[in-house]
Amino acid sequence: MTDSQGARLAAPITGRLAIIGMGLIGSSIARGARQMNIAAEISAFDAAQSVRRRVEELGLADHCADTLAGAVEGADIVVLCIPVGATGDAARDMAPFLKAGAIVSDVGSVKASVVAAITPWLPKSAHLVPAHPVAGTEYSGPDAGFAELFINRWCILTPPESAAEAAVETIRKFWLALGSNVEIMTPSHHDLVLAITRHVPHLIAYNIVGTAADLEEVTRSEVIKFSAGGFRDFTRIAASDPTMWRDVFLHNKAAVLEMLARFNRDLAAAQAMIEAGDGAGLFDLFSRTRAIRRGIIDVGQETAAADFGRRSAPLNTAAAEKPASETLR
Amino acid sequence: MTDSQGARLAAPITGRLAIIGMGLIGSSIARGARQMNIAAEISAFDAAQSVRRRVEELGLADHCADTLAGAVEGADIVVLCIPVGATGDAARDMAPFLKAGAIVSDVGSVKASVVAAITPWLPKSAHLVPAHPVAGTEYSGPDAGFAELFINRWCILTPPESAAEAAVETIRKFWLALGSNVEIMTPSHHDLVLAITRHVPHLIAYNIVGTAADLEEVTRSEVIKFSAGGFRDFTRIAASDPTMWRDVFLHNKAAVLEMLARFNRDLAAAQAMIEAGDGAGLFDLFSRTRAIRRGIIDVGQETAAADFGRRSAPLNTAAAEKPASETLR
Repeated sequence: MTDSQGARLAAPITGRLAIIGMGLIGSSIARGARQMNIAAEISAFDAAQSVRRRVEELGLADHCADTLAGAVEGADIVVLCIPVGATGDAARDMAPFLKAGAIVSDVGSVKASVVAAITPWLPKSAHLVPAHPVAGTEYSGPDAGFAELFINRWCILTPPESAAEAAVETIRKFWLALGSNVEIMTPSHHDLVLAITRHVPHLIAYNIVGTAADLEEVTRSEVIKFSAGGFRDFTRIAASDPTMWRDVFLHNKAAVLEMLARFNRDLAAAQAMIEAGDGAGLFDLFSRTRAIRRGIIDVGQETAAADFGRRSAPLNTAAAEKPASETLR
Repeated sequence: MTDSQGARLAAPITGRLAIIGMGLIGSSIARGARQMNIAAEISAFDAAQSVRRRVEELGLADHCADTLAGAVEGADIVVLCIPVGATGDAARDMAPFLKAGAIVSDVGSVKASVVAAITPWLPKSAHLVPAHPVAGTEYSGPDAGFAELFINRWCILTPPESAAEAAVETIRKFWLALGSNVEIMTPSHHDLVLAITRHVPHLIAYNIVGTAADLEEVTRSEVIKFSAGGFRDFTRIAASDPTMWRDVFLHNKAAVLEMLARFNRDLAAAQAMIEAGDGAGLFDLFSRTRAIRRGIIDVGQETAAADFGRRSAPLNTAAAEKPASETLR
């Protein structure tokens, strides 16, 4: 009963867990870690005083430190839950205060540049095991987090080849206990996979919302009124945290530009079909994509239910959840 | 109590209502019309025998006809709920059987071409009042419909200038009774508004899903596994009915190509920002789009709740629903 997915732990995995950055992800980890008995003690830090105050009001940590050093000292696991662009500076600032043998992890959406930013600063005794929980909502801040955010979502670990096996195993157990499925890959492959599954889709969503806002023939009020369906989903994506996404595109530049080029090439082909009135070609494109959707439902990353499976399961029953495909109408 | 939005009618608006095409939209109208007492009698027809059988099994109509003529005969209102490309043929085939003074309407996502396809066939005594309920899900068929589909969604009417006022008013009451908000505009303006709010977003969603499926460096299994967040929303859109969407792009070609050109221009600008590492420009783009999202929540077309407000309200309490903005966290 100590490392199966989604079951409350009989004994904590670690002594002190330090969470740096208490936004959506950091505060969700704090809530989940407490609920699942992952750490004997949780310390937290956030660069914004207003966030620190809110963390105290909500009682999200045993100890909310006023400084990065104060949160990190004595911690067995330190998880950086901050924008990708801030990772290097945080690693530099906290390095002198790390306990010998501490495991340093993160939750960044980009991995190669994060590994490059952190590695030079860490003392030799520290273990780096980067992680990317592929989960999120369009909300930000400590009030937006919830313990169930990671349930049945993938968490990708990208440890260096030299990483100590025990440290990797500890972080794996950590994410299993939060309800995630865990996969291990190289940082560069991670960045390619995420470019096509998340980064380019987000860029496109932001872009179409911006295009609509700039129109003169169609008023913004009309855009808003008639946004049910397609566009509405795009605006939800486009409401995500601007700082996080700016950093994603600055730090996963090569993979994003590569995937964007392919998207543009395919879109030009679709555009040519419309111009030519090629109904058979359009029907084929629109049919092919249904198969992928079905694949996603079948592997349980999505349900056919009206609430999209969000927040429907309490954390400690995640493992007992019905496969989502059974609810498919 | 006869024409306020979302209240069950004391007396029916019409005698016989004929619904041609019993997919998601047609079967939702049938369910809603019965629940809200909109018609004294409902007749239905679908070109597919399997659908007709299912309509009978589900008891969705008082009379499920074996022929188009049989459903249309004696009907005071005929609503075509079929793909846009099939509208002209249906109008031709049913015209000889229309009752004098019948109102003909439809639910197509494109209006200028539908008006052009139907008008030549109708007898002079018939009244054409085209409609477009801006609502839908990614499911198709008679089992997918539900009476609440149209609640608090917009329905756009595009009557010709010569339309009889009484006929327009009847169709307006019809959609109010189904829970919709009703707006009237010209067919060409409708097509422009919908091109940017629905048609181009759908094309882009289909396209990115297709691009991902064709990758060699990233397996389809990886695309499916890590699809939480952005891409997952795209696949939901991309699972919509291929026939309907093929027809949309064939029949709203000019407006779609115009909006697509602007989208491409804006995307090229975003791409240039990524290439140049222009963090300030990206942050600005990502911040601007949040305002539009907020606007959509404020006008109640979307809620901040985890189930996106879907199916949460019974039909006859729609008017009493709290504004969605009150649930914003």
